Amino acid sequence: MKESLTQSLKRAAQVRANGTATLCGTRRRNWAESVERVARAAAGLRQLGVSEGDRVGILALNSDRYFESYYAVPWAGAIMLPLNTRLTAADLAYMLNDSEALVLCLDEAFIDLLPGLREYCPTLKHVVYLGDGPMPVDGMVGWDDLVARSEPMADAGRSGDDIAGIFYTGGSTGRPKGVMLSHCNLVSNAVNAIYMIGYDASSIFLHAAPMCHLTDGMSTLAITMAAGTHTFIPKFDAQQVLEQIAEHKVTNVTLVPTMIAMMLEVPGIETMPLASLRQFMFGSAPMPHATLKRAVDIWPEMLFLHGWGMTELSPIGTMLPMAMRKQAIAGDRLRSCGQAMPNLEVLVVDSEDREVPRGTTGEIVVRGPTVMQGYWKKPAETAVAMRNGWFHTGDAAVMDEDGYVYIVDRLKDMIISGGENIYSTEVENAISLMPGVAEVAVIGIPDDKWGERVHAIVVPREGAKLTPEAVQAWAREKVAGYKVPRSVVVRPERLPLSGAGKVLKNELRAPYWADRERKI
Amino acid sequence: MKESLTQSLKRAAQVRANGTATLCGTRRRNWAESVERVARAAAGLRQLGVSEGDRVGILALNSDRYFESYYAVPWAGAIMLPLNTRLTAADLAYMLNDSEALVLCLDEAFIDLLPGLREYCPTLKHVVYLGDGPMPVDGMVGWDDLVARSEPMADAGRSGDDIAGIFYTGGSTGRPKGVMLSHCNLVSNAVNAIYMIGYDASSIFLHAAPMCHLTDGMSTLAITMAAGTHTFIPKFDAQQVLEQIAEHKVTNVTLVPTMIAMMLEVPGIETMPLASLRQFMFGSAPMPHATLKRAVDIWPEMLFLHGWGMTELSPIGTMLPMAMRKQAIAGDRLRSCGQAMPNLEVLVVDSEDREVPRGTTGEIVVRGPTVMQGYWKKPAETAVAMRNGWFHTGDAAVMDEDGYVYIVDRLKDMIISGGENIYSTEVENAISLMPGVAEVAVIGIPDDKWGERVHAIVVPREGAKLTPEAVQAWAREKVAGYKVPRSVVVRPERLPLSGAGKVLKNELRAPYWADRERKI
Repeated sequence: MKESLTQSLKRAAQVRANGTATLCGTRRRNWAESVERVARAAAGLRQLGVSEGDRVGILALNSDRYFESYYAVPWAGAIMLPLNTRLTAADLAYMLNDSEALVLCLDEAFIDLLPGLREYCPTLKHVVYLGDGPMPVDGMVGWDDLVARSEPMADAGRSGDDIAGIFYTGGSTGRPKGVMLSHCNLVSNAVNAIYMIGYDASSIFLHAAPMCHLTDGMSTLAITMAAGTHTFIPKFDAQQVLEQIAEHKVTNVTLVPTMIAMMLEVPGIETMPLASLRQFMFGSAPMPHATLKRAVDIWPEMLFLHGWGMTELSPIGTMLPMAMRKQAIAGDRLRSCGQAMPNLEVLVVDSEDREVPRGTTGEIVVRGPTVMQGYWKKPAETAVAMRNGWFHTGDAAVMDEDGYVYIVDRLKDMIISGGENIYSTEVENAISLMPGVAEVAVIGIPDDKWGERVHAIVVPREGAKLTPEAVQAWAREKVAGYKVPRSVVVRPERLPLSGAGKVLKNELRAPYWADRERKI
Repeated sequence: MKESLTQSLKRAAQVRANGTATLCGTRRRNWAESVERVARAAAGLRQLGVSEGDRVGILALNSDRYFESYYAVPWAGAIMLPLNTRLTAADLAYMLNDSEALVLCLDEAFIDLLPGLREYCPTLKHVVYLGDGPMPVDGMVGWDDLVARSEPMADAGRSGDDIAGIFYTGGSTGRPKGVMLSHCNLVSNAVNAIYMIGYDASSIFLHAAPMCHLTDGMSTLAITMAAGTHTFIPKFDAQQVLEQIAEHKVTNVTLVPTMIAMMLEVPGIETMPLASLRQFMFGSAPMPHATLKRAVDIWPEMLFLHGWGMTELSPIGTMLPMAMRKQAIAGDRLRSCGQAMPNLEVLVVDSEDREVPRGTTGEIVVRGPTVMQGYWKKPAETAVAMRNGWFHTGDAAVMDEDGYVYIVDRLKDMIISGGENIYSTEVENAISLMPGVAEVAVIGIPDDKWGERVHAIVVPREGAKLTPEAVQAWAREKVAGYKVPRSVVVRPERLPLSGAGKVLKNELRAPYWADRERKI
């Protein structure tokens, strides 16, 4: 009688049987067909030996088959494991092995990784081909074959605290951790989402960000709950996003800030026919002020909806409330990631979990039905994150008098120099506004006198010339003296990103900290 | 980390501390004050000896103190017991006794019942006065005193499957049953409600239906979740509802159909300033077609939102989706009570719980997070209602191709005459359209030849003259011959209503069935 991921799928088929569920290239399927395929694929997975609670990996670019597997795995009573498409074979092997996956669904883009994955994951018994065309290698079973050869099974009926999926976090620090999310977690987030975003049966969502990540995955679930329509492109491509919006009259899309930045560079963007689009949602990482400003300049009428969250929160923690959007965009609240979701408690606390006065920086902690069940096989890490009944996010933020949250920084990206706390995002935001700057990351590097010192890595826009001295001079006019980078590297290569589109600061920091331990 | 009723109260104080929470007569309190009062009242209840899981009755007309008690009881970790204000002392004593209530909160309207309640409920240790002015009798403690003398306590933190309230059903058949609703149940319904109704921080809700009933109670919780504003009148009065809407710019109100019918009789209704009102929601009982038609004629632009549900569903099961409202009102779907709520499975099934073909009458069954935990101390009744993993509603309905539900009748109000099923509501709807008819009830009475025969009880509108023969002649033109009432009683007294505004057909049937047992 509890929340169940598959309930809303059945409801979509009930209320919009003939309406388009998925639109992928030239394939269009209605909700009745989609549910039928999910029930058949689930039965097919059972025939492969998948039992309740078994883990099934998904390693593929975006497609309708990805969507079907997202529901077929829980329909079969198993646990889905959407794998980050940007990771190395070693990381993926670690996750499959750590989760003891029994089946892996993958498409043509990842065929080359298969031998390695098989070798390092002895529990892996079957590989299901999610791609197009004939099977590229032997020993796999095709998704469509699985659907065709199986009779639909009844929903396994898992619900409530039963785990629906394990989502490995990007691993920007240490070993990736498997975040266990229950049916209750994911459904609670989806109900929040349809309210806050305003999805309904007329919503047409474009899966452009990777479906493996919950930034997009939340809409996989929420659009289904609203009985809307899913459209797909295999992976983010700025030009293709714009074309799809125009062609399919897309109403909603969720991107990470770096993707929006790339779109803004597409020639002719100002005049493209995007009238169907109701809003851009962005999340996963703070939007640099310069990007947001450019976006609002180009589309003054567009709603830019900032959500803040993380995998452990299924994933949304805060969002701008519907009624406040226009206002928020006009005013200073453009920088805010909004207020707590309807059924969550979100506090900004000190190191002893006492709420700090509004306007003061502290750590965000969260309590409520979207908080994860824990980290897979990591009880110690779970206990640390969940202490005192709160989930500790590790994000530093300020909350204003009206409960609006302003993310300041990841706590671990905070630089402590001479006893002063320096939030890297403040310095990054300042430098991002400098003409000619495409990307910037600010990190703390070791300093014998001050402990850490501020260091900036800057990527110039095409054709722009930047010098370290010019960057420092710019920063000196924008931020306090002790926050100005003591050293600057200008480099042509783009910054390394996690699968979630976050800059991998650990990777940037690594060469400087090779022989030392960073305290934060 | 689960759903908690009090989470959204704390959130409201976080996001709208200075906004109006309650507006009751001349008393206006903001969200910060309201939460403070709830936390103090909860501490006061603890001091009276209330422990986690204890039952606290609430027997009062609508007010801001009722609202506060609705949150203070769960904040203290106890279980609230909102008692139906229209019941007899005997019924109330039964409920207090059955639930072993420790404390009763009541106001001046129910003082006379107190000696009897005390006598028949030996567990009752304290009575808290929720009313205005000085304490009417000795031995009570005032709500405001409780607030004033106590320091705020921390939320007891009950959540998930913990029982938040016991809501006795009207008892239209047999002994009242205590429906146990958990924090998860009530929060899940509230999240559904804010989405489907569209409540937000600008919503101003008028509590005009009795707060003891979940038809209104769902908005007690949902408006708080949306951080909107609550306004109150002590009890339904058609004139007062209209005045309050105009005075406080009320945006939303939920009424039962009989109340809407009464409002439509208020002189000058057509020209009253109700521009602030976004919609009327109605529920608890089917709206007679004639009433709905009159209402739509008077306010062609108003949204009439039909919800269907029952206490056991916390309470909403289906509702017209946002995007469909205008359309639904224009067309035949005016008669529908909408589609399944976002996270519920709603099916229409046969006696073996198999889904019947769309368009065929069957019983509605429901599965999902809003389904009650069971009937208090009634495991056998619980098992019957919950069989096969579905909650059985006892409502007969038809579902169309798009998942819209049309309530046909209560199964037990269905009349079986000569082997034919006759749905009383069909006959009632036909007769309700007859000029001069104010109210009508159709019941089955014993018939030696046919088992049951159709009998109508008709209340004429003021000044109208009706005869049994004229009613039969009208019915003969509208429904099939075997559905025409064989006997008609025209009476001046209004029909008896349950606390939820449903016609008490059991009471109407009783004299006819005195010496026999009805099979259904």
